[in-house]
Amino acid sequence: MKKYRVGILGATGTVGQRFVQLLENHPQFEVTALAASDRSAGKPFSQACAWKLAGAMPDYVKEIVVQPIEPPLDCELVFSSLPSGVARETEEAFARAGYAVISNSSSYRMDEDVPLLIPEINSQHLGLIEIQQRKRGFGKGFIITNPNCAVVSFAPPLAALDRKFGVESVFVTTLQAISGAGYPGVSSFDITDNVLPYIAGEEPKVEIESQKILGRFNGETIDKANFTVSAQCFRVHVIDGHTASVRVKLRRTSTLENVFEAMKSFPSLNLYSSPKHFIDVCDEPSRPQPRLDRDTGKGMTITVGRLFPDNIFDYRFVSLSHNTVRGAAGAAVLNAELLIDKGFLK
Amino acid sequence: MKKYRVGILGATGTVGQRFVQLLENHPQFEVTALAASDRSAGKPFSQACAWKLAGAMPDYVKEIVVQPIEPPLDCELVFSSLPSGVARETEEAFARAGYAVISNSSSYRMDEDVPLLIPEINSQHLGLIEIQQRKRGFGKGFIITNPNCAVVSFAPPLAALDRKFGVESVFVTTLQAISGAGYPGVSSFDITDNVLPYIAGEEPKVEIESQKILGRFNGETIDKANFTVSAQCFRVHVIDGHTASVRVKLRRTSTLENVFEAMKSFPSLNLYSSPKHFIDVCDEPSRPQPRLDRDTGKGMTITVGRLFPDNIFDYRFVSLSHNTVRGAAGAAVLNAELLIDKGFLK
Amino acid sequence: MKKYRVGILGATGTVGQRFVQLLENHPQFEVTALAASDRSAGKPFSQACAWKLAGAMPDYVKEIVVQPIEPPLDCELVFSSLPSGVARETEEAFARAGYAVISNSSSYRMDEDVPLLIPEINSQHLGLIEIQQRKRGFGKGFIITNPNCAVVSFAPPLAALDRKFGVESVFVTTLQAISGAGYPGVSSFDITDNVLPYIAGEEPKVEIESQKILGRFNGETIDKANFTVSAQCFRVHVIDGHTASVRVKLRRTSTLENVFEAMKSFPSLNLYSSPKHFIDVCDEPSRPQPRLDRDTGKGMTITVGRLFPDNIFDYRFVSLSHNTVRGAAGAAVLNAELLIDKGFLK
Amino acid sequence: MKKYRVGILGATGTVGQRFVQLLENHPQFEVTALAASDRSAGKPFSQACAWKLAGAMPDYVKEIVVQPIEPPLDCELVFSSLPSGVARETEEAFARAGYAVISNSSSYRMDEDVPLLIPEINSQHLGLIEIQQRKRGFGKGFIITNPNCAVVSFAPPLAALDRKFGVESVFVTTLQAISGAGYPGVSSFDITDNVLPYIAGEEPKVEIESQKILGRFNGETIDKANFTVSAQCFRVHVIDGHTASVRVKLRRTSTLENVFEAMKSFPSLNLYSSPKHFIDVCDEPSRPQPRLDRDTGKGMTITVGRLFPDNIFDYRFVSLSHNTVRGAAGAAVLNAELLIDKGFLK
Repeated sequence: MKKYRVGILGATGTVGQRFVQLLENHPQFEVTALAASDRSAGKPFSQACAWKLAGAMPDYVKEIVVQPIEPPLDCELVFSSLPSGVARETEEAFARAGYAVISNSSSYRMDEDVPLLIPEINSQHLGLIEIQQRKRGFGKGFIITNPNCAVVSFAPPLAALDRKFGVESVFVTTLQAISGAGYPGVSSFDITDNVLPYIAGEEPKVEIESQKILGRFNGETIDKANFTVSAQCFRVHVIDGHTASVRVKLRRTSTLENVFEAMKSFPSLNLYSSPKHFIDVCDEPSRPQPRLDRDTGKGMTITVGRLFPDNIFDYRFVSLSHNTVRGAAGAAVLNAELLIDKGFLK
Repeated sequence: MKKYRVGILGATGTVGQRFVQLLENHPQFEVTALAASDRSAGKPFSQACAWKLAGAMPDYVKEIVVQPIEPPLDCELVFSSLPSGVARETEEAFARAGYAVISNSSSYRMDEDVPLLIPEINSQHLGLIEIQQRKRGFGKGFIITNPNCAVVSFAPPLAALDRKFGVESVFVTTLQAISGAGYPGVSSFDITDNVLPYIAGEEPKVEIESQKILGRFNGETIDKANFTVSAQCFRVHVIDGHTASVRVKLRRTSTLENVFEAMKSFPSLNLYSSPKHFIDVCDEPSRPQPRLDRDTGKGMTITVGRLFPDNIFDYRFVSLSHNTVRGAAGAAVLNAELLIDKGFLK
Repeated sequence: MKKYRVGILGATGTVGQRFVQLLENHPQFEVTALAASDRSAGKPFSQACAWKLAGAMPDYVKEIVVQPIEPPLDCELVFSSLPSGVARETEEAFARAGYAVISNSSSYRMDEDVPLLIPEINSQHLGLIEIQQRKRGFGKGFIITNPNCAVVSFAPPLAALDRKFGVESVFVTTLQAISGAGYPGVSSFDITDNVLPYIAGEEPKVEIESQKILGRFNGETIDKANFTVSAQCFRVHVIDGHTASVRVKLRRTSTLENVFEAMKSFPSLNLYSSPKHFIDVCDEPSRPQPRLDRDTGKGMTITVGRLFPDNIFDYRFVSLSHNTVRGAAGAAVLNAELLIDKGFLK
Repeated sequence: MKKYRVGILGATGTVGQRFVQLLENHPQFEVTALAASDRSAGKPFSQACAWKLAGAMPDYVKEIVVQPIEPPLDCELVFSSLPSGVARETEEAFARAGYAVISNSSSYRMDEDVPLLIPEINSQHLGLIEIQQRKRGFGKGFIITNPNCAVVSFAPPLAALDRKFGVESVFVTTLQAISGAGYPGVSSFDITDNVLPYIAGEEPKVEIESQKILGRFNGETIDKANFTVSAQCFRVHVIDGHTASVRVKLRRTSTLENVFEAMKSFPSLNLYSSPKHFIDVCDEPSRPQPRLDRDTGKGMTITVGRLFPDNIFDYRFVSLSHNTVRGAAGAAVLNAELLIDKGFLK
């Protein structure tokens, strides 16, 4: 099998480290370039990067010399986990220089011609790539994105419901992990014995991204899904795993059994990083829990529980995803696998 | 000023300890009896009780010998923090024996003839006492209760809105502190790096109690408030302080300024434990936070923040109260002060 | 390869669950019996056990019906993680009935004729088995034990030093994880924003066990190692991983390089669960850390860091081990593998 | 009583905020100047400072306009909590300009002519002030300091022992709170479910400061106390309160009762911030604990427990102090009260 040569932009950050971890021994990708800020450039990765994930830094990256974040890099595609401030300009530069840019940043997510992908839900949005290349004058390069990590915690069960019953309104309250803020991120002084009711910029992102994700590609653009989301976002004292408390109003309501089944049977894909179950619906009253369930399907499964009829809307449930795997680096890797599968990488 | 002689039922538990702490140097009450389970009875309180609150056990209780939880006790009124299992029978025994029972237990909260009080909101519900005494054949004894600690975190702003604009529907997601589960309560193994999406029996309590609290006393019973509450309840890693994420649909909507004002101007009372502000509405985007705001008004103020128009319902906000003070022992003490003020204790 | 049929005594507890997890797909063992308290007996394991480890309960145990903790069980050897109260009598019953008992309990650790094993350090102590069988009138059954989890965090580097330079005195202060207390174990109310300076019975265990572990088998008994240990034991807010702060006085002091080398080169074994490195000595000033290093060698490696000359004794260092793997279930599994390797299981 | 006009250097930091809190309603001091970095200067304190302590920012400072950190300031003495980088130069500038500088920084602590004070232990070191003024050509200005917060957790019981029995050697392992690192300080990602075995620069400070603190002023300089300290310092997941695990070798050993009594009877002073007991020695086996005991004596009492004979040295004990009160701002305020009491402020 051909191995694609990949670069990681922002390789020393926490999401960058997840990329390094997830791409070790990946059958389709080989990391050939690591790029990070000027302070790191020129050093071997083992010196440039303060490794923060459990387990040791993989040997395969230790000797790779970190390069500045600008084209050219010795690779065919780049995974980007750049901070919003620099992502927009830099990612465009790479796309313009002919690279496939698989971005975890928020910069391009809501651009009309940029796919915002959850492969199990909206792979047909890849049709935007051709439009994007034409409109922006890119050659073979292009940009695709994955959603905000909080959106990922509840968009999959929502998609399952929308497909079968139509979704009209959604209230979501998120309980988000500290790893979502990167490193050093949240001060221990702020989160110990505490809850933070505010994550800058998060609530609007959560409210708008899911309409695009669940939208339909009409051949030119995405027709946004026709529902409204109201989001309140909290930071809680959890290392990994975003939990969402959800109520949903359906257009055509149904029995609890059918709703349960709609989620449980929503198909996974056959990509390398695809979990066996895209959505796992559990019966135990006290699940899902971040520490116990975030690693289900190697962090790529969404776990749903506490699915009950609601006394105002139709249903309520609790949904969980691993924010730095399914909600960030793992999402981008899955997107890249989808690109190969659909023939977008030659 | 006359000092009423009070007993504490369940004095060695965490709420019992809060009673001991709050009643130290109280101008209207003097603790003259401490009652706890058979295991503790007969020992001085200093030996019977493993003190768990910050700061030392107050000297005044150290030598009091713990008694069994049954009448008679040397006092005029009793504060009860008995576990649900034994509360119903025991509290009735005390009421029948002529004691005013100020209960923090859930046993009688939803009984038709028992006041479920938040003094600032529904002191007129005290009218039920006479009906209760007649109906149950109590002599001068009676039972009053305070609400579930989670309900207290959002019922006050709800009352402010209901009074001015009418409330139609409420979605609430609670993020509750570990102290709400008593001691030993939540295992550290369950809550560290975790969120628990289930608190046994909590969601139904939260959904029904607020309708009674905001109801009107019609001379015989309480006409329940005419709105619906949908609750999802989570345990988070916070020691004290329940946070509520709330969306509310009003019957007559209004401007943000008026809504803000309705909450802020909701009057406090002039009782000894009354805070200066019943509801404190803050502007800072990152507040309220349990660790920083739970002690406002010595734990008796409700702090509201993040008050914004919602894009499905009318308004959203975050509300916080100290669950073992305003949501438990402090609530009961305030109820007792109200009894004196309204002439129910002679 | 022959697969030995094994039973787990106390299978539903936290250490029992670790046994279930570590024995899944083990090439030498097949779990054929699960035993737990009367409350659990008769139920399939999936119902009897509230699974508390990250990841799902392995499928292979779900249908096994839990049995009472008494012989006979359908197996050749038993792993025991019984609480001290019942371990002594029950483990003897199994040994007397012909089972090899590999115990994680403290009951027999200090018995003169019972091996207290860390395979890399004292496998020659297996010579006690024959003496034990003779003395106690066991047939082919016998009991072996692994050390207290806190001892394991520093005994390996101590053994490395003792072998090369002789150890005279050791000060150790342990910072122990909550999982060491089982489930529900430590109340979240006690450990959040806190340190507990007392673990019942722990300091004496830590002070005496290492002398036996590092002792020499003289053909009849163990000649205890000739050094003194002073231990202070703390519980800290960590899920897994015991950290030890150690100062050591040597009989023949040496250079830092030689001390470093003595630890680093201490050989691991070739058993199935043996880690590549028994002791890993790291250079980074901020390591070892429980969250980052406890899983090194799948939880079977001891990580040492901050090795420096001391200004009162000879050397100081910090040592870390995974308390429920290397310090409990993993230790017992390694002991069983050693039994096979040395021909004690037929 | 005369109120001295005081300034706070570094007023917006966490220790600066403690100063603001402790000086509210202080009978001897009135805060008349707040100084902070250029970014804050010119703004009212309520805008310049993100208040991080529990409870609201005191009203009395809200309108004070923050000034640059340089003389002149409208006050007679300054409390300094400047970071080490800038403290040395700035504090000298204030002293030279005639201000009494009461510093919490480490810059001058080990300077031969600068008192390193714990008032209960070494108030005679104030004799250095005159020498300092002469040597450095200061006019009426001068600098005094308080010790590193970790040293304060065990120096008081050490002083009690040294005075009565002579101390020869001390092993101390500290378990330090996150507030010791300031704000934002320790990343939540680093300390959650973790212990950090390294605090930059801390171990040497702990090893040398206590010898100066317990030294004797000989009329010209301090004769350092004649004992050796070996320190290992850890950061643990506690908000406030440093715990020390201590073993001590005495020159003249004594009974446990006498050692207990030596600590317990060590006298407190009669200054405004003096606690009733300087050292509180507790019997309960599970104390001291940071969350339960740090606020004893309003955070100014040192709590000792687990005092037992050691099996290598003479005694072992656990000692606790509130690191941002007794170990920082409270220490400096007490030092200032001592200056008044001893006539050093006119």
